[in-house]
Amino acid sequence: MGVAILPFLNVGGMKLFHTESSDWSAKSSPRTKSVATSIMTVYVLLTLLCFIAYWMTGMTAFEAVNHALTTLSTGGYSTSDGSMNHFSHAAHWVAVVFMFAGGLPFLIFIQAMRRKTLRDLLGDAQIRGFTKLVVFTSALVAIWLVTKQGYEIDDAVRVSLFNIISVVTSTGFGLDDFTAWGPFTSVVFAFMMIVGGCSGSTAGGAKIFRFQVAFALLRKHINQLVHPSGVFVQRYNRRPVNEEIVRSVVAFAITYFITILVIAMILAATGLDGITSMSASMTAVANVGPGLGPIIGPTGNFAELSDTAKWVLSLGMLMGRLEILTVLVLLFPAFWRD
Amino acid sequence: MGVAILPFLNVGGMKLFHTESSDWSAKSSPRTKSVATSIMTVYVLLTLLCFIAYWMTGMTAFEAVNHALTTLSTGGYSTSDGSMNHFSHAAHWVAVVFMFAGGLPFLIFIQAMRRKTLRDLLGDAQIRGFTKLVVFTSALVAIWLVTKQGYEIDDAVRVSLFNIISVVTSTGFGLDDFTAWGPFTSVVFAFMMIVGGCSGSTAGGAKIFRFQVAFALLRKHINQLVHPSGVFVQRYNRRPVNEEIVRSVVAFAITYFITILVIAMILAATGLDGITSMSASMTAVANVGPGLGPIIGPTGNFAELSDTAKWVLSLGMLMGRLEILTVLVLLFPAFWRD
Repeated sequence: MGVAILPFLNVGGMKLFHTESSDWSAKSSPRTKSVATSIMTVYVLLTLLCFIAYWMTGMTAFEAVNHALTTLSTGGYSTSDGSMNHFSHAAHWVAVVFMFAGGLPFLIFIQAMRRKTLRDLLGDAQIRGFTKLVVFTSALVAIWLVTKQGYEIDDAVRVSLFNIISVVTSTGFGLDDFTAWGPFTSVVFAFMMIVGGCSGSTAGGAKIFRFQVAFALLRKHINQLVHPSGVFVQRYNRRPVNEEIVRSVVAFAITYFITILVIAMILAATGLDGITSMSASMTAVANVGPGLGPIIGPTGNFAELSDTAKWVLSLGMLMGRLEILTVLVLLFPAFWRD
Repeated sequence: MGVAILPFLNVGGMKLFHTESSDWSAKSSPRTKSVATSIMTVYVLLTLLCFIAYWMTGMTAFEAVNHALTTLSTGGYSTSDGSMNHFSHAAHWVAVVFMFAGGLPFLIFIQAMRRKTLRDLLGDAQIRGFTKLVVFTSALVAIWLVTKQGYEIDDAVRVSLFNIISVVTSTGFGLDDFTAWGPFTSVVFAFMMIVGGCSGSTAGGAKIFRFQVAFALLRKHINQLVHPSGVFVQRYNRRPVNEEIVRSVVAFAITYFITILVIAMILAATGLDGITSMSASMTAVANVGPGLGPIIGPTGNFAELSDTAKWVLSLGMLMGRLEILTVLVLLFPAFWRD
């Protein structure tokens, strides 16, 4: 039964990025173990670096350990009720760097370490897209904060980068209240929740590469409209995008949006307002943390929601983490036979 | 230049439904003229029927003409400020029937008339999907109205069917205030706005068939997960779904949602609240009419929005009506060469 899920996991997670021509793919049997060990090493190493960095910013050792463990894992648990508001600006920058690292595909780190070059990191289409998105939206929010909310430029950059990365990587650390900046930033943050980090990272959400595959299709489609008799190949990360990948992206997109919609409808039916229902559903399925609106915004929490709402959101978080189809497949009788 | 758009229009609009094996496709040159004449005939005939029906419900001849002209065209203009609230229950039912007809693909009417059988209408995948969606969501809303809002059953059925069909077909006639029924129905109506009617009808929105193609892909994907070595063909309306169709659906979906998102962000940046920005963008791009929230809900209007907002929404309506890609293609220099 486990085997039946593998083709999907391959397509959804790794196949586009790492199957051919990477150093470790030559070893066939000990390969899985070797990859697991490498990921473990990178993960422990980065967490350790993160711990030291936090410690140097003035956190106690206890605080630094806790935050290091939940930064790289994009978990977002804090020892303080005020989340990151409790700590220094330097700590915010440390969080920015390591949350961002947590949003990158880990196997590329390994490849880069083995080959002792940053070219893999800089050349990867997913990392480039992710970086561009983060820089562009953070700049947009920072400009908004300076012009409309009276922030100093350095504060605006720090706070916008922090919150954009916290939301897009599904870490969910809080710093200031981004819902207090007006509806424009709320729309930006809602969008970032849905997008999520890179495939192969610890981040949740729909994952950048799915949007990139869709854009590759769009580009080909427009080319075809402009040059009806031209022949175009969609490529992603220098590999052609085949029918199987497109199908898995469409299948994911439709189940993702319908799951969010159904959960939002159930929450709204329990009496929650529209913004809370919709953003609670999105933040749960994308595994982010804070939602929008007065109840579940960055300064609020989910405590006062009804039991029904909590059960439904728990299911949503589980489905989102398992990329939904892995859960749906369990509902098919055929899956349990043979 | 016009020719370059044709391949897209074919895929987006008709190709899946009517190219082969229909009566008129055999005639090659006079075909376009013949189809146009047939559509005109059906359109005039249905409008005439609609006028007579409205008239019989007690509307004046003037009111009946006006409403007939904007019902089948899914336009939604009313001679009364109160829209359909001004007229009798019987008029509401007439609107239900003819708005629904306006949401169906017109060529199927012609086919059915020529062959003198309803089988084409009942057997068409898009019409079946559209009907199921309308019946299911109307039932959901009617149950909500009876249990939570204290409506009588007959009123609940009439009002929910009317509003669901008005929104999904992008007609936009108003009856009661569906935003006053609580957040649950708002989420349902927001979803219906996006879905839209059948391709080949006068209705706006993303069109049912695109969702059905996505579901066909999802079904194939799940089958493949459950039976990894099985061979499955996606079909829609008994024809295989080819790569070109999938590409056009993905291209449409991504431009549709990004257009809605960008317009919502611009509106939010002008200071409008989140619900108004988001629903104004959706209702404009889907060509529906009313949005959600206190300003642009079914009992409000767009008069008090800023000039910037009105310009942006006008552009959104235009892009939505032309299915976006037709507009985007104009931005490519290559399109204007040769």
